[in-house]
Parts: sequence; C-alpha cells; structure tokens
Amino acid sequence: MNKQQLIEQIRQKKSFLCVGLDTDIKKIPEHLLKEEDPIFAFNKQIIDATAPYCVAYKPNLAFYESMGVKGWISFEKTIEYLNKNYANHFIIADAKRGDIGNTSAMYARTFFEEMNIDSLTVAPYMGEDSVSPFLAYEGKWVILLALTSNKGSHDFQLTADAEGERLFEKVLRTSQKWGNDENMMYVVGATQGKMFEDIRKIVPNHFLLVPGIGAQGGSLEEVCKYGMTKDCGLIVNSSRAIIYADKTEKFAEVAAQEAKKVQEQMAALLK
Amino acid sequence: MNKQQLIEQIRQKKSFLCVGLDTDIKKIPEHLLKEEDPIFAFNKQIIDATAPYCVAYKPNLAFYESMGVKGWISFEKTIEYLNKNYANHFIIADAKRGDIGNTSAMYARTFFEEMNIDSLTVAPYMGEDSVSPFLAYEGKWVILLALTSNKGSHDFQLTADAEGERLFEKVLRTSQKWGNDENMMYVVGATQGKMFEDIRKIVPNHFLLVPGIGAQGGSLEEVCKYGMTKDCGLIVNSSRAIIYADKTEKFAEVAAQEAKKVQEQMAALLK
Repeated sequence: MNKQQLIEQIRQKKSFLCVGLDTDIKKIPEHLLKEEDPIFAFNKQIIDATAPYCVAYKPNLAFYESMGVKGWISFEKTIEYLNKNYANHFIIADAKRGDIGNTSAMYARTFFEEMNIDSLTVAPYMGEDSVSPFLAYEGKWVILLALTSNKGSHDFQLTADAEGERLFEKVLRTSQKWGNDENMMYVVGATQGKMFEDIRKIVPNHFLLVPGIGAQGGSLEEVCKYGMTKDCGLIVNSSRAIIYADKTEKFAEVAAQEAKKVQEQMAALLK
Repeated sequence: MNKQQLIEQIRQKKSFLCVGLDTDIKKIPEHLLKEEDPIFAFNKQIIDATAPYCVAYKPNLAFYESMGVKGWISFEKTIEYLNKNYANHFIIADAKRGDIGNTSAMYARTFFEEMNIDSLTVAPYMGEDSVSPFLAYEGKWVILLALTSNKGSHDFQLTADAEGERLFEKVLRTSQKWGNDENMMYVVGATQGKMFEDIRKIVPNHFLLVPGIGAQGGSLEEVCKYGMTKDCGLIVNSSRAIIYADKTEKFAEVAAQEAKKVQEQMAALLK
C-alpha cells in the first residue's frame, strides 16, 4: 500500500486506528481453547469485528514466536486471512528487527515478498545497512524505532550529542538520507506528549506509528495536538484495550464497540 | 551454562570458537535437498563434525524465520539436538530482539525456559526494561549489541555525547547497572580492531561475542591483542568461512578441518 492509498483509507473511514494483534493464549476467551488454532480463531473474529473502524493491523511477532512453530502457523494464517479478505488494511509486522545487510535482506524477502506484509518495524542501532535492504521494495515500508513509549526510552534515545542533538533526532535526520516519506515511517510512543513537536520539525510529512494509548497511558488528544499533519500523518495503535476488552463469547462484539469508540474520537480529531 | 563452566570449556578445548549456524537453503550442498529437513540435516552434520573444536553454536534466527514455519521446525530441532547431545556447548540464539518489558518477558520465556537456550542477542535501543526481563534467569545470558561489525555501526554507535562518551560506551556503562559479568556479554565486531582497548576500559571482565572474522574481514590476532582477558573473555564467531567451506558430500569433513585450523590458532593465542 502506498502513501496516497493509506491517506485515502483514513479519509474514507475517518479513522487512523491500528488494532494491535498482541494475541496471548493466556488472555483469550476460554471457549476458544477448544478450537484447533485458538490464536487464529481469536484473530479472525477480532479482525472481522473491528475492520470497519480501523485502517491497520499490527501483530507483534513476539506473541507468535513465543508459541514456537504453532505460533508461526497462527501468524501466517492471520496474514493470509488479512491479505485475502482485507486488502485495504495496512499490515504492520511488529518485529523490531535489525541485523547486518545480508541478514536484513533475508528478513525483507520473507516479510515483504513471501508474506506480502506492508511494513515492518526495524531497530536503528546497527545503522544504514541494516535498514536499506527493506527500502528496496516498491510500496513497502520500514517503520523505524525513533522515540519509543517505554520507560527505557530515556536510557539512550534522549542522549544529546555535543551539538545538542538527541539520539532519536539523529535517527530521524540521518535516516532521511536512506529513504523518504513514501517508504519510511517512525515509531513514536503516545506517552511522549509534547516531544511530537520536536519530531515534526525534522519529519513534517512522514507518517508516525504511535503505540502507547490505552494500557500504556498515552493521550490521543495530545498526540493529535502535537503530531497530526494535514494528511493526518498518524497511525495510532491500541492493542490490549480493544482485543481484551471482554473475555466472554461476546469478546469480538465488545472489541468492535471499543474500536468504534476510538474511531469516533478520531473522526472528531480529524475535522 | 555459567561463566565458570564456560571458562572451563575454553580451557579444556583450547578454543573460544563459536560456529555460526547461518544455514541458508540456497548455500547448502545439493545432495542434502532430498532430505526431509535439509536445514536440520546440514546443521546436524556440521555440529557433529565441528563440536571438538568449538565451545559454542550460534544460529542466526533470520535464516530460519526466512523459511517460515519450516524454518522454525528446523531451528527447534537444531536446539533440541544440541541440548541432547552437546550439553557442554554454549548456545546463542542470534535474534537481536528488544521490545517493551512484557514483550521481552515473552521472548525470555520462549528462548530460555521452553527451548533451554543459554543466551540471546538483544538490541539496546529501547533501554533497561527491554533488557531486564532476560536477566531474571539463573545461568542464562543477555548478549547486548555494543559495537557491531557492519559499516552502519558508524551511523549511531560512535556518536559522542556532550562529555565525549560514545553511544556504545554509554551502552556498556549504563547496562552495568542492569546486570553483571555473570549474566551479560556484549557484541563487539572483529572489524573494530583497537576499539577493543576502549571497550576493555569499561568492561574488563565481561565476555565479548565477536562476529566478523572470516567473510567480514576481521583479524583474530588483533581481537586477541586488544580484547583478551586472563579468562579469555572472548567468544569469536565464524559462520560462512566454516560451514560453507565445501559444497560436496565432504562438506562436514572440510568444515571440521576449517574449524580445527581456527582452533589451533586460538590454542596458540591462549598461551
């Protein structure tokens, strides 16, 4: 999916919500455990229920990998289901990968070619050659970690160099040489509040993937106040607050209600 | 495996070699392709042949993940085989993970508890809470990326702050508060030469995992000259130069010869 198509989806749906498929076997409704593939059964119902209210889905690979081979099967089935039935939804593999060039190239082939995923989150620590193999694919995206939502983001990301430039700013600025706003986005945590102003000074037109509203405590209003562009420029993720809103047989219905609530807030903020 | 046991293995074998299992279906000998699981068949023979000359194995997850579900099966079988037959070899899952706390905790459970892997490489960008869940396991190790072997290591890792401390030094120093030399190691590329001196000023006793000799061009002598401690303090990885030294039916035998050559160099350097 390219940038224009993504913007069009946001306009049509009046939503820039991404539903995080952080599917944990210990947290899904009990009645699903009798299914052959409980993780996929859960995802399928969550997707069918929330699709009208969101523009993107973001499975976090850790949740699938933690189940070993079974988890990978559930992950692949989920991606296949999305590609087949919801081709207009943007798919983010939240993998936080980043390795030397030939290894990153293998990841790119797997996620972009074989699985037809739209985008992948990548950690910037290893620099250009760990990122650039992902940028060679038309219509595919790297989403680079810039300023994350967790407490540990203070350990290194905010360190300023001799000229006062902080590491996340250096990541934003340096990576402009590798890609552009048609193939790169950045992860910026919703908990970072006014820092979005500083970020927009460096990347005024890039889309930002914003985790951290809901369970992690970030504010949607603040994110929009400081981070929204004329094209929206935001994909805001919510995982736990939507997918685990209810644990009965009505879980998908309740997830849809929660997604709709966020979508309605977003519609108002888009005006 | 704890630090004392690792040192003991190095003494006994007169080797601090790690064989990197970067197993690529496109590079293994053709006659293996008729096997039910060619990747595992390759790994099994490489392991049996090289075990006397090395103290560690390091499968890079990217190579397995790039094969999807099949790759995960090969990976799990390789780990199982190592645990069952080579319990005295240190296993490194080269995964370069790093995510928010609850996600890192899931990874830790998978790799350390379920798969009984000794150690995992982790990227430091997200800070303490992305690393600390891995440190809660007795006898298990985090191997934190510090100064990598690739060209992109110059993009961010060498950036100095206002006091002149470079990012990789800050990573080394800050992470001392999270763990110690019994549960943390650091990745330092063999291509970094004299930088090992600067690293040893901050972490005089920690083990370093050193990729980048062989195909990437680092020098074993230089690494030892500047990086070796009285307990050795080094695990030096070679992947391609050993496992792909030959592509005929004799591949395992030739791999053993190559591993033995490195081991003999190491024995001399350990004196």
